[in-house]
Amino acid sequence: MRTVFWDYQKNQLYLIDQRRLPAALELFPVNTYQDVEFAIRNMVVRGAPAIGASAAFGLAVVAINSSANDLDGIISEMKLAKNVLKSARPTAVNLEWGMNRIMEAAIGFIGSVNDFQNFILMKAQELADEDVILNKKMAEIGANLLEDGDTIIHHCNTGALATVDWGTALGVIRTAYQQGKRIRVLIDETRPRLQGSRLTAWELEQYNIPYEIITDNMAGYFLSSGQANKVVFGADRVAANGDIANKIGTYMLALAAMDNNVPVYAVFPTSTIDLSLEKGSLIPIEERSEEEVLDLQYKQERVTPNGARARNPAFDITPNRLITAMITEKGVVYPPFKENLRNCFE
Amino acid sequence: MRTVFWDYQKNQLYLIDQRRLPAALELFPVNTYQDVEFAIRNMVVRGAPAIGASAAFGLAVVAINSSANDLDGIISEMKLAKNVLKSARPTAVNLEWGMNRIMEAAIGFIGSVNDFQNFILMKAQELADEDVILNKKMAEIGANLLEDGDTIIHHCNTGALATVDWGTALGVIRTAYQQGKRIRVLIDETRPRLQGSRLTAWELEQYNIPYEIITDNMAGYFLSSGQANKVVFGADRVAANGDIANKIGTYMLALAAMDNNVPVYAVFPTSTIDLSLEKGSLIPIEERSEEEVLDLQYKQERVTPNGARARNPAFDITPNRLITAMITEKGVVYPPFKENLRNCFE
Repeated sequence: MRTVFWDYQKNQLYLIDQRRLPAALELFPVNTYQDVEFAIRNMVVRGAPAIGASAAFGLAVVAINSSANDLDGIISEMKLAKNVLKSARPTAVNLEWGMNRIMEAAIGFIGSVNDFQNFILMKAQELADEDVILNKKMAEIGANLLEDGDTIIHHCNTGALATVDWGTALGVIRTAYQQGKRIRVLIDETRPRLQGSRLTAWELEQYNIPYEIITDNMAGYFLSSGQANKVVFGADRVAANGDIANKIGTYMLALAAMDNNVPVYAVFPTSTIDLSLEKGSLIPIEERSEEEVLDLQYKQERVTPNGARARNPAFDITPNRLITAMITEKGVVYPPFKENLRNCFE
Repeated sequence: MRTVFWDYQKNQLYLIDQRRLPAALELFPVNTYQDVEFAIRNMVVRGAPAIGASAAFGLAVVAINSSANDLDGIISEMKLAKNVLKSARPTAVNLEWGMNRIMEAAIGFIGSVNDFQNFILMKAQELADEDVILNKKMAEIGANLLEDGDTIIHHCNTGALATVDWGTALGVIRTAYQQGKRIRVLIDETRPRLQGSRLTAWELEQYNIPYEIITDNMAGYFLSSGQANKVVFGADRVAANGDIANKIGTYMLALAAMDNNVPVYAVFPTSTIDLSLEKGSLIPIEERSEEEVLDLQYKQERVTPNGARARNPAFDITPNRLITAMITEKGVVYPPFKENLRNCFE
């Protein structure tokens, strides 16, 4: 089962409800683009590639449900939906990228309303299928950098659940493990939403890859005591100079790795690169509700005192100087990143 | 009310039960040294100075409850208790230091059993009273380093609850605030036991000092975006060269501060310095139960998948190169720490 998938029998979009994992594996059915917006905003679905595919399918939902009589009418509705969906989460560039691809295809289409609807759905499906192919390609490329006996610190969730299937950074680990390399993962729990201890641990349980959960603040201890020898993570947006916006905590993890001469690999498709932004400080950082910090398990059971306030930036910027190499579907990118990232598009 | 106190009417030792805060302020009555061992091991009481005072009072409990007829018999029981208590938590040196002080006094005592019992209790009380005096002295000294308008990142709990009263790093913040300096605190929640979001937030609520809770992995974001300009924490043991064992996460916090040229101040009494250990890597690091990581609120409500494993080192080592200055009751100690820490004892 994919994280985001169209059920062609029921003619309906489904998402795996990541809020419920690992306690329960439940599907979140999508009937309107507002459902997609809700799902992205509330992290029913999360992970840059997964929200990109969800939004692309969201536009297909608009096209299919539209009561407009002509393509212009449908495309207007899709544009409206795109603007709403875009605002659901500002940091990951894949969200807009996925919808841009659908809109470009939509604008170029000539044919009947019915054919258009099928065409848009096909385009969203194509984007989703392509995501899986790119992930497997990155995984093959990245697995060459992992060695038998590695203990790898992994941040957030970058597996099947963060993509349509297979994963980015976790995909690299999966492929290396399948190649027979004995690999051990230290999973950053990834406060506040616990994508590591909930989702990555759930995935690794299923893949039988050995792991232990650590709190985010422990990575430095394991790195400095020689108990971890590689660091991997994904990316939500990469600026033209190679600065990386990724889940909060990535910067401190990369810093601790560098302080101990441990290589740091970021794994992402080239669709995550935003050449329009010169450097990381220009990437918008989403600040989410303080409840995610104050109420550990979102159960209205606070551990913090009455009146407590919190801050909750969801991402941070890891400067390019802290990255050893970037793994994309077009190959491994080494410094200088400014030049070499641009070369990916030539 | 002090964190650790002897009730002279009931002739009994009490601890504030820090497992229950901030939901409830309850006392933990101590009847035997085994109660003290339980309290230290399970973090009913925590914080290097507070466990030092608790163990000192614990030896007084042994002396008072002893059924031995002579001082040799009582002192033997106290030695036995000391060995048990020492093993309750291995990292903080104050635990042994506090008991050593009591034992030295005990061995030198000449007089009746009854006088001995009163004498040992007096010595424990003296140590506790002294802790408060030293904290206030450190606070006065350290407050000079804080400025009006500072936003300070604080790790773990170093307030009244980590000491007999007033606090070390948080004591510095309290005194600076009392001096009229407008200070804002970003409280690291301090996973896994949440001493920040539970205990430090509870204290700052009472002192009316403005604060916001952040997850530990957010400190880098606030430092690199210029939203925090100082970092303070306590210490559990300081090696002769100035390497500091402190609550897990301190190393990554100090690293992020250094990467952004933000000063880092460690605040501790000289009893936390262990000149017998040349460097930080020789300090024993306690590894606690994985349940503290797997079960966020210790309520047997796991968020992690069945079968999940975790690691749980309770402390890490921050190398001396990451510390701007150390604040002790004898003054501010600057690099080179190896020479200047030794001078504290001359």
